[in-house]
Amino acid sequence: MSDRPGRVPALQQVPPDVVCLPDYAAHARERLDDNAWAYLAGAAADEITLRANRAAWDNLALVPRVLRRLTGGHTRVELLGRTLAHPLLLAPVAYQRLAHPDGELASAHAAAAQGAGFILSAQASTSMEDVARAVLPEAERGPLWFQLYMQHDRGFTRELVQRAEAAGYEAIVLTVDAPSHGVRDRERRAQLKLPEGVSAVNLARLPPAPRTQIDRTQSWVFDALMPDAPTWDEIDTLRSHTNLPLLLKGVMHPEDAREARRQQVAGLIVSNHGGRTLDTAAPTAWVLPRIADAVGDAMPLLVDGGIQRGTDVLKALALGARAVLIGRPYMHALATCGAIGVAHVLRVLRDELEVAMALCGCRTVADAGPQLFFEAP
Amino acid sequence: MSDRPGRVPALQQVPPDVVCLPDYAAHARERLDDNAWAYLAGAAADEITLRANRAAWDNLALVPRVLRRLTGGHTRVELLGRTLAHPLLLAPVAYQRLAHPDGELASAHAAAAQGAGFILSAQASTSMEDVARAVLPEAERGPLWFQLYMQHDRGFTRELVQRAEAAGYEAIVLTVDAPSHGVRDRERRAQLKLPEGVSAVNLARLPPAPRTQIDRTQSWVFDALMPDAPTWDEIDTLRSHTNLPLLLKGVMHPEDAREARRQQVAGLIVSNHGGRTLDTAAPTAWVLPRIADAVGDAMPLLVDGGIQRGTDVLKALALGARAVLIGRPYMHALATCGAIGVAHVLRVLRDELEVAMALCGCRTVADAGPQLFFEAP
Amino acid sequence: MSDRPGRVPALQQVPPDVVCLPDYAAHARERLDDNAWAYLAGAAADEITLRANRAAWDNLALVPRVLRRLTGGHTRVELLGRTLAHPLLLAPVAYQRLAHPDGELASAHAAAAQGAGFILSAQASTSMEDVARAVLPEAERGPLWFQLYMQHDRGFTRELVQRAEAAGYEAIVLTVDAPSHGVRDRERRAQLKLPEGVSAVNLARLPPAPRTQIDRTQSWVFDALMPDAPTWDEIDTLRSHTNLPLLLKGVMHPEDAREARRQQVAGLIVSNHGGRTLDTAAPTAWVLPRIADAVGDAMPLLVDGGIQRGTDVLKALALGARAVLIGRPYMHALATCGAIGVAHVLRVLRDELEVAMALCGCRTVADAGPQLFFEAP
Amino acid sequence: MSDRPGRVPALQQVPPDVVCLPDYAAHARERLDDNAWAYLAGAAADEITLRANRAAWDNLALVPRVLRRLTGGHTRVELLGRTLAHPLLLAPVAYQRLAHPDGELASAHAAAAQGAGFILSAQASTSMEDVARAVLPEAERGPLWFQLYMQHDRGFTRELVQRAEAAGYEAIVLTVDAPSHGVRDRERRAQLKLPEGVSAVNLARLPPAPRTQIDRTQSWVFDALMPDAPTWDEIDTLRSHTNLPLLLKGVMHPEDAREARRQQVAGLIVSNHGGRTLDTAAPTAWVLPRIADAVGDAMPLLVDGGIQRGTDVLKALALGARAVLIGRPYMHALATCGAIGVAHVLRVLRDELEVAMALCGCRTVADAGPQLFFEAP
Repeated sequence: MSDRPGRVPALQQVPPDVVCLPDYAAHARERLDDNAWAYLAGAAADEITLRANRAAWDNLALVPRVLRRLTGGHTRVELLGRTLAHPLLLAPVAYQRLAHPDGELASAHAAAAQGAGFILSAQASTSMEDVARAVLPEAERGPLWFQLYMQHDRGFTRELVQRAEAAGYEAIVLTVDAPSHGVRDRERRAQLKLPEGVSAVNLARLPPAPRTQIDRTQSWVFDALMPDAPTWDEIDTLRSHTNLPLLLKGVMHPEDAREARRQQVAGLIVSNHGGRTLDTAAPTAWVLPRIADAVGDAMPLLVDGGIQRGTDVLKALALGARAVLIGRPYMHALATCGAIGVAHVLRVLRDELEVAMALCGCRTVADAGPQLFFEAP
Repeated sequence: MSDRPGRVPALQQVPPDVVCLPDYAAHARERLDDNAWAYLAGAAADEITLRANRAAWDNLALVPRVLRRLTGGHTRVELLGRTLAHPLLLAPVAYQRLAHPDGELASAHAAAAQGAGFILSAQASTSMEDVARAVLPEAERGPLWFQLYMQHDRGFTRELVQRAEAAGYEAIVLTVDAPSHGVRDRERRAQLKLPEGVSAVNLARLPPAPRTQIDRTQSWVFDALMPDAPTWDEIDTLRSHTNLPLLLKGVMHPEDAREARRQQVAGLIVSNHGGRTLDTAAPTAWVLPRIADAVGDAMPLLVDGGIQRGTDVLKALALGARAVLIGRPYMHALATCGAIGVAHVLRVLRDELEVAMALCGCRTVADAGPQLFFEAP
Repeated sequence: MSDRPGRVPALQQVPPDVVCLPDYAAHARERLDDNAWAYLAGAAADEITLRANRAAWDNLALVPRVLRRLTGGHTRVELLGRTLAHPLLLAPVAYQRLAHPDGELASAHAAAAQGAGFILSAQASTSMEDVARAVLPEAERGPLWFQLYMQHDRGFTRELVQRAEAAGYEAIVLTVDAPSHGVRDRERRAQLKLPEGVSAVNLARLPPAPRTQIDRTQSWVFDALMPDAPTWDEIDTLRSHTNLPLLLKGVMHPEDAREARRQQVAGLIVSNHGGRTLDTAAPTAWVLPRIADAVGDAMPLLVDGGIQRGTDVLKALALGARAVLIGRPYMHALATCGAIGVAHVLRVLRDELEVAMALCGCRTVADAGPQLFFEAP
Repeated sequence: MSDRPGRVPALQQVPPDVVCLPDYAAHARERLDDNAWAYLAGAAADEITLRANRAAWDNLALVPRVLRRLTGGHTRVELLGRTLAHPLLLAPVAYQRLAHPDGELASAHAAAAQGAGFILSAQASTSMEDVARAVLPEAERGPLWFQLYMQHDRGFTRELVQRAEAAGYEAIVLTVDAPSHGVRDRERRAQLKLPEGVSAVNLARLPPAPRTQIDRTQSWVFDALMPDAPTWDEIDTLRSHTNLPLLLKGVMHPEDAREARRQQVAGLIVSNHGGRTLDTAAPTAWVLPRIADAVGDAMPLLVDGGIQRGTDVLKALALGARAVLIGRPYMHALATCGAIGVAHVLRVLRDELEVAMALCGCRTVADAGPQLFFEAP
């Protein structure tokens, strides 16, 4: 990171005053320039959804249980045919070398060490093959998935999927909530530029998009961007390119969840992209139970958006999620002290989940349900 | 503006840190004296409605849609017999030369260039004929409307309407929510005075109001002001003076909307005057759907009050508006960098609207409806 | 006020930056020592009711009306057999010479000049006879009432009532919500002491309370204070001492209002003592419509608590009040510039009320009702 | 306290600006080092429940009553066969010598002097026998109870219970909501260490816990901690060791309350441990009426969590509590000025309760019920 003078260098260990995920933010801020901070911490427009995501978890009131026999309890979950030690995954985040020179390798190592899932972003700043090689073999780590944006060049998109499968990724996560880049004003104010040496290396060979000609009466969004956006009728084709299970990330409407069930996708990630695409989108904690109602047990549901406490994880499970993704908190830890920070975040979150389960009388995640919540009269 | 020393002069271009409408406020503040700022930014009394207008849009939570085919979508709307490229209009704002020496001409040019509607205030500081001449011909611009207060001299009021028609204005907007000046305490504290050279030039020949004599037992409002205020039984007469369609601005009660329908006015603008007349008036985002329920499709509804984001526009359309007006944001842009700022505001808002539509799965504005909102259980 | 060095002296005119009631608070603060400020501005305990009173008025959203014929409208109300120009009264406030050397005389003069009611506190720092003499004759002023606490000495209480009647007061207001002094922590922290020359002169001849002996197992409140507190069965007796109408101030519960109706008292003042007795008492804007429901038109209802805007007054009338009392705002004006400030406060509030009525389409106070409010769905 | 240099020493009297419980916090903060402050003032995680506990009491709006005959009223309650002068108890708080050198002796003396209950923490820094001896005889003081955590060594736990009985304690309070230490991040950030000379003296002879071996696939919470946690089937056994009544502290779920009733425990303390165990646990003011509904009058209910005003106590009684516990406020008073502060806190709270009762028309606690609250429509 010597190429970014003036910054406080990353640490080699967890700072002594960091005891929970939110504690990392201030440390990360010190270590990131305005550019990287705007990218990692910002969200769309007025960042209302960013704050609402957090508040929605906080506002769910739990009712503790007492004196239950919980010996031998555990946090294990079944997901896509594997039994995981706990329901935590690292969300796909682009350009992790913005945060720390070790970038995605650090995050993937930490996830592997903690038995957490890792979802590599299509816009990773590290080669997908390098990441996969670094964390094998599968039996000793959590799931390794590859996140995909449908690229304007569908042939290249197919290659990406097949490279991912060949490299050992176990699932494809198609992000469907960002057909256009969100209106991320904080980034735009900071005039985000990737520093030298940080780029989307896995997309390096993507042919440049043909320059769409639009006239004054046409719309950049509808006439230039949307023709490249993925649609429901491409899901089958995408699946035909690979034996890997396909999950959709960014499903928020029950009708879309039902369509996904009809198309028999392998799972859904209820997400508003951490508030980074559509500001004032409903918080995921409100949406999750509606999606669970809509599709029942047909496929596993995952969720992200503001999760940073063990109680948040327990609430997500109680509302119908099989597992959760965290994003900003691990990026803040990565910026602060690299892989050791990311591993610490996962360890703390898992410990907090266990404590929350114990205090709510849950021996296993199957015990988490709507009865955990205080219902206002 | 050399006549107001000590102010930061207006810029010739959009400041680099301005990426959305709210960003203009700080720049405008720097460039306006306390007097002009109090007039442009202030509202009635404790400014509760000013804040509530904004909060009401923010608090409507959207539910994104995914994977819909949106190619060829657009923002076009039909309004008073014309097809507009998008549903954005500049609200009537008085004395725009307070904000920038180019005043209404700058705003009208910017609107024309962006295909937006422009509603000239009766209290404009530029001649209505000059504005109309500057932006013709009609085919290459958005709608050009004239806003009217019923003047104490009804003959002069008739002349105004007929001048507007002759000059090429396409509709008359009668403001009905301000029979008396609002209680605008911020203005009164700043002791607002129009600077030399800024005046309501189109009202220059208005005969002075006869000095109403009221005794101690009488009321200034009820005995001096109200006799000059317009009433329902004058709407027909007003319409008889012109071939232009007549819209009413400031309708907030369903019963008033129904009366307007009975009187077959051409359209309604749901408005609380941006919070500038009656403080604690309900926010327009709450009122709009009630008005839409009351009058159905009998006439187009427009709305203003706190709109500053593409998501706000989309929400207004989903709640029943055909088009929206913006006020303060374009005045802040005008103060910051003149016509180029106003044009930028319109371009940004339209882009944000397109992004919001795409993320909510709306190909056209007809796709916007109540199903976009997350309904609390 | 030369006896309180270091204070900014009271002004001879309304400060130029004061345009509404809330503007007076900062000016008053400058002119009062901590002692007097704690007494006048403070309330019970954590001052939750003080803030809730204000917030409850603010949170009632109005729906404006348009184009109604309002000529000849007015703010007149009937109250205890008189027709008043408007529904504003000055609430009883003790020790007004704490705020300004002219004390109650200034307030009473201002009320008389503005046709407002004046309710002299039993703890006034000016003789009740002096006040009455100063503002006569009745025809040229608003109502003049005398507020009463039931004193431990019932004979003295009877004398007070009879002195008030003899002096020309038109009604007795028995305060029933303060059988014990409230827990006014701000005052207690400031260790409130009345300055030299400020005292409850009308109670000067009240015999000292016999020293109640209570043992360790007894309660100061229940065994020493409560035996002196007034009870329902004393209302009749109190009334028998005078021909004046008797109102009760501090009624908040519908059951108490019904009992008052059974006892045929002349009127009720819905009040939580401005938050000065029981903290977390419900705001009066919530309670008023319940009281109105409970007792219908059997007697006039008045209300106080946080009223400082014309819209607040209109809302109170719409919720069932015949008239309203203001307290702190006029004391702040008194401290700032004496009688002229108090008169200004009344004039501004009446003007604001007229504007609010006009904007809500009310020609008279009889037009104010529940239909003025936006009802959340 | 000379062993903690740099701190402001404790006072010998109540500071003159302290008139209510919340006033003590600032004084305590001055007198405690960061370490002790984090322990005494902090709570779990983001301290949401800590704040929610307070807010829930504040948000219950009371409706005052007037003119009722209240002479001879009192605050007496029946509890476990005794008649208490008032319903106030000091909650069990560990390590009180962190706050003041006199520690638990000061608190117990103050409680005795004020007729309040005292619940000695199992983790007291003073010997349980010393405390009991200091406050005897029973007739002249409030209840003296012993709080118990189920220790990993059940034999030692039995000894503790029997020592408490022998020493004169009148009841055993088993804390059931903290089978594991809460996630108290403020403490962990301050890296809490007990100073020299402060320790859990009553647990000095507790044999060290056998070091549980857990492998990587096991859970510290479920496999190491939970096997030592108490369960419902141990309640009977625990009771068999003593003739003292057994109360459970930390019951929040109606189902758990019903189980407690089936097991015929002597009473329940509705508590979320002051927000110190499970953050985002529902506030006790929300939970209490549900518990009261669930178990009716089968056993006395007590409650704690944020109580610091007489109105809070009255609300708790109205929602079904027989008595209340206070925690932080008395610890702040202890830190400020020792026993005299704790006694002052109890006296003030009792006075405030009497005033609140009088203003709400309650002659005895039996008059407190749901009719005290303003019910939103």
